[in-house]
Amino acid sequence: MATNMAAPPQPGYVQPDVDVPALTALLDGKYADVRDLVRTNLAKYSQILDEAEEMSIDDFRERVREVVVEMAATGQTGMGFPEEYGGGGDIGASIAAFETLAYGDLSVLVKVGVQFGLFGGAILQLGSKHHHDAYLADLVSGKVMGCFAMTETGHGSNVQALGTVATYDQETQEFVITTTSESARKDYIGNAAKHAELAVVFAQLEVGGASEGVHAFVVPIRENGSVCPGVRIEDDGRKMGLNGVDNGRIWFDGVRVPRTALLNRFADVTPEGVYESPIENPNRRFFTMLGTLVQGRVCVGGAGINAAKVALAIATKYAVRRRQFEATSDTEEELLLDYGLHQRRLFPLIARTYALHFAQEVVAAQLHDVFSGISDDEHTRRELESRAAGTKALGTWHATRTIQECREACGGAGYLAVNRFAALKADSDIFTTFEGDNHVLLQLVAKGLLTDYASEFEDLDQLGMVRFVTNLAVETVIEKTSVHKLFERVRDLLPGGDDWDQEAGLLDPDYQLAMLRFREEHMLAGVARRLKRGIDQKMNPGEVFSHVQDHVVAAANAHVERLVLEAFVDKTRGLPAGDNKVALSLLCDLFALSTIEADRAWFMEHGRLTVQRSKAISREVNNLCRKIRPIAVPLVDAWAVPPEMLRSPDLVG
Amino acid sequence: MATNMAAPPQPGYVQPDVDVPALTALLDGKYADVRDLVRTNLAKYSQILDEAEEMSIDDFRERVREVVVEMAATGQTGMGFPEEYGGGGDIGASIAAFETLAYGDLSVLVKVGVQFGLFGGAILQLGSKHHHDAYLADLVSGKVMGCFAMTETGHGSNVQALGTVATYDQETQEFVITTTSESARKDYIGNAAKHAELAVVFAQLEVGGASEGVHAFVVPIRENGSVCPGVRIEDDGRKMGLNGVDNGRIWFDGVRVPRTALLNRFADVTPEGVYESPIENPNRRFFTMLGTLVQGRVCVGGAGINAAKVALAIATKYAVRRRQFEATSDTEEELLLDYGLHQRRLFPLIARTYALHFAQEVVAAQLHDVFSGISDDEHTRRELESRAAGTKALGTWHATRTIQECREACGGAGYLAVNRFAALKADSDIFTTFEGDNHVLLQLVAKGLLTDYASEFEDLDQLGMVRFVTNLAVETVIEKTSVHKLFERVRDLLPGGDDWDQEAGLLDPDYQLAMLRFREEHMLAGVARRLKRGIDQKMNPGEVFSHVQDHVVAAANAHVERLVLEAFVDKTRGLPAGDNKVALSLLCDLFALSTIEADRAWFMEHGRLTVQRSKAISREVNNLCRKIRPIAVPLVDAWAVPPEMLRSPDLVG
Repeated sequence: MATNMAAPPQPGYVQPDVDVPALTALLDGKYADVRDLVRTNLAKYSQILDEAEEMSIDDFRERVREVVVEMAATGQTGMGFPEEYGGGGDIGASIAAFETLAYGDLSVLVKVGVQFGLFGGAILQLGSKHHHDAYLADLVSGKVMGCFAMTETGHGSNVQALGTVATYDQETQEFVITTTSESARKDYIGNAAKHAELAVVFAQLEVGGASEGVHAFVVPIRENGSVCPGVRIEDDGRKMGLNGVDNGRIWFDGVRVPRTALLNRFADVTPEGVYESPIENPNRRFFTMLGTLVQGRVCVGGAGINAAKVALAIATKYAVRRRQFEATSDTEEELLLDYGLHQRRLFPLIARTYALHFAQEVVAAQLHDVFSGISDDEHTRRELESRAAGTKALGTWHATRTIQECREACGGAGYLAVNRFAALKADSDIFTTFEGDNHVLLQLVAKGLLTDYASEFEDLDQLGMVRFVTNLAVETVIEKTSVHKLFERVRDLLPGGDDWDQEAGLLDPDYQLAMLRFREEHMLAGVARRLKRGIDQKMNPGEVFSHVQDHVVAAANAHVERLVLEAFVDKTRGLPAGDNKVALSLLCDLFALSTIEADRAWFMEHGRLTVQRSKAISREVNNLCRKIRPIAVPLVDAWAVPPEMLRSPDLVG
Repeated sequence: MATNMAAPPQPGYVQPDVDVPALTALLDGKYADVRDLVRTNLAKYSQILDEAEEMSIDDFRERVREVVVEMAATGQTGMGFPEEYGGGGDIGASIAAFETLAYGDLSVLVKVGVQFGLFGGAILQLGSKHHHDAYLADLVSGKVMGCFAMTETGHGSNVQALGTVATYDQETQEFVITTTSESARKDYIGNAAKHAELAVVFAQLEVGGASEGVHAFVVPIRENGSVCPGVRIEDDGRKMGLNGVDNGRIWFDGVRVPRTALLNRFADVTPEGVYESPIENPNRRFFTMLGTLVQGRVCVGGAGINAAKVALAIATKYAVRRRQFEATSDTEEELLLDYGLHQRRLFPLIARTYALHFAQEVVAAQLHDVFSGISDDEHTRRELESRAAGTKALGTWHATRTIQECREACGGAGYLAVNRFAALKADSDIFTTFEGDNHVLLQLVAKGLLTDYASEFEDLDQLGMVRFVTNLAVETVIEKTSVHKLFERVRDLLPGGDDWDQEAGLLDPDYQLAMLRFREEHMLAGVARRLKRGIDQKMNPGEVFSHVQDHVVAAANAHVERLVLEAFVDKTRGLPAGDNKVALSLLCDLFALSTIEADRAWFMEHGRLTVQRSKAISREVNNLCRKIRPIAVPLVDAWAVPPEMLRSPDLVG
């Protein structure tokens, strides 16, 4: 809580004017053309926002399919596939297109994600030329629809424990796919209830009595509109949102597919029933396969960030139209955005949205480089997977929180469906769960940090993790994160000596980065020590982990927030001097200081923040809000959300 | 972040077994019979949860009306009306009935609130015998439906600035009701789009050219199903939720009503056009009128708390069925509720729900006493209004946050409509806005504290407030809240001397109360000082207020949390020794310590928490979670949510 009035303005500070087109160009980056193509398509199909409300579920599902196929014809959805199959051959462009699509109806977005990202991505990444030739051209055009049948009723996060089995029958050279129990039915599968003809089914492969772990198979589930023999499909029914996507359950009763149905890039079964894989370790093999699907996480994270932009654009524009209560004048009521509290509610969210946008740009570029073969080694892949998991978790939680705050900031008007929040809120709600539960993802991130990506990253077996950390690496981690080393690393950033945390200016990005870096490393070291101590005390490793789990998640969060700030600082530093640089610096400072403020208890507890300085940070956050007030509308305009997607005629005018 | 493993158990601590029926009886209190009647009705009409999803909006609105009228016939909805008009003559019972109804479909709840609370309440509280005789019996039975036309498109929170005008025409002895601009149309009015025959319309009364402020009039808007001449009604259309309630907009074009249409308990116009009122001050008159409608806020707060119970009951029961990942065993996956992080996510919310339940019990009892004439003086009324505003704000935010956390804790299954969260989330979302925007309500609370309820409480004119505080009372407030006095008051509670905050046991309720009391008074004094300093510096009072606004809201929140803790401590202390007392004490400790933990930065900044003690509190929160783990299911069972209302067949089993 700030206890002072306004601090004096910094000497030399001049309130910036935002150059909106230039800022949009900066945000859109190298994929500006692709993003504009999607914006045009969104405007063209803007009717879908009404149809989402007015149509029956059945009709809306058909309509969404139609729009997706028509958008596919513009090339928008196939950017990530090789050109010889009708794609655009540019993975970065495919991410940019998907992110931008999140300005519109999210059923369309998710249907695109299912068809081209999950189903198409599995065929592309896990299959070989045989599968590409057979399926890619038709799926890129939307002629063949497919689904991605991984999750089961009993297993979502723990994919290694799936119950569906695929047994090799050497006699017929077929795999026999079987749902072994009710909890092994595939569930929540997008495209399954109505449209998919093919399914990529994840199942435990059994060859000659041996279990080889989870593999993916292409299984026809519908032919000419009828469900195939041995397959049973049930509609998941109405959902909180995304009702334009036909989610369903699938059971397999001894369904036979040819030997070539195995997506065999990483493992194959010979006609004679010999299991072969270039990757010897089964765990490593499994996580290598899964790792190729990381694009889905990158996409969902970006979509969450862009959904937040829509909400913030509406709420900010409303707040410069809506007046309520006389405050500074006896005769005219005050604009909502001139209230300090309203600024406090919206501006840190705008700042965080910008920060996440630039962090997303980094992870999308890394994804492009890894999957285009520009830089692709084991360690880089693990780092990409970690960054994708972290950005997805923070981006989607940010969406949930931001959309809620913006709805409340628009009062009763925000509750009317025409004003957009109803769909935004209901449709985006599941983003925190699908493509990886956020709490599980942050534990993945922490594990990568603790083990320095030494083991297969996705393998979130807590027992294994605890054992690994306590037996093998803990000395290294503790050494690496010792307070001494920690100070050394911080000193690299801020050469101010041991009092760096007291002497640096609050608005010095190196100070802000040093704070977030200190927090991350200190938390990580704490986790390692607590795990080790628990094991030394002969506690059950699972129990140890359970006790430390909130600390684990906090450390991961600290890591990702540091990456996000780095991305924002790098981007801002790289800009030429000018008003847009000043404006972005205000936002970057606000993101950094409001992030430190939110965790100021931790910084005080760990000696990095005095009471004085903590209060000064709160005051500075308020100062920054007042500086951002005059440029708030240009800052949300720069996101270039098509007006048709903002809708809300009475709110944004 | 806790840095230690488990603390040793307290000596003498024995894990309690919860006696569920006894705990339910305690929670249900003196209105157990009424609550059970509602539970029975909810189970009888449980089909409504399906109908909400399956029916068209038009059909569902009719169905909700039908259910409401049928429930009215059981006496459930008329508890608060005098017996001579078919009511139950017991205001406390009417609150209990309404709260319990929140276990079910919330369109039914809100339709009941509109008809019997808002419309019926206005007739009862603002009208005189003439109006009671004319309307009460028919509205209590549901034969006549009405609406409460206060909010306009342009004014929600600032009711004093409404634009609708009612001009007295002496010649015809009629009032002429006119919508003076587009922004003065009535908006979001429940029951308006379809069902209401009558409206209680709030309008600026003009008599003989003089403006007398906002008053309420009974205006027929439909006769035999047709909209009355001069009235125009538009449907608000689809909303995020509550689509069984027909919200609409109303315009009045010179609609004439007889002089007796004025609800004249607090003011009247003689046939000759003389304005008369027993309350001389117009502001005071207005807020006295509004104050009689406080019951709506008490009801919504209680409804929010009970909606949170439904979500927590589902998520807790799911977490003792769902397993994911091997953790403590190599062969069996771990129950979600055995993960420390999952306990951290759910148990503080369960504790806060209990705390709010008992705080709600206090405010409902005060309401009963005031409106039954048992204790009814100005100061008591103002305190009731403040408590109602605060409990409503905290109860409804708690609902939003809890339902979201519980949905996420149920993963993908939580997203299916059949599993209840879709409706709970969408329907309850507006609770934070209607019956008073929560941020505005907390400012009302703060104003009451700063002015010691000296002025009319609801009058949230910031200019007036700043002037009042700075000119009249600031010395008093600052004196009253001086650190010296503050310590004195804390010492009354904790006679441990000046080191009370370091020496008391964390689990001593007096310590917990002293902490919350210190925070409240210190924040309040800070607000007063900052206001005074701003004015002394010749700043515009509105600007001063804007700068201090987040501090104002924080002070109000601190006040309400203190009241909530007091209610919980009082309830727990009053129990006979036994397992249920032990169980409630665990929850009360968890509520208190997780509340302090959430604001531990503030306590450190203000010298009331050392780093050591702050960390100890986090450890204790984790300890308490582990103690609550074995009794978590009985604790949510004690809320006695009818199983039909939990729905979620695959989640709760």
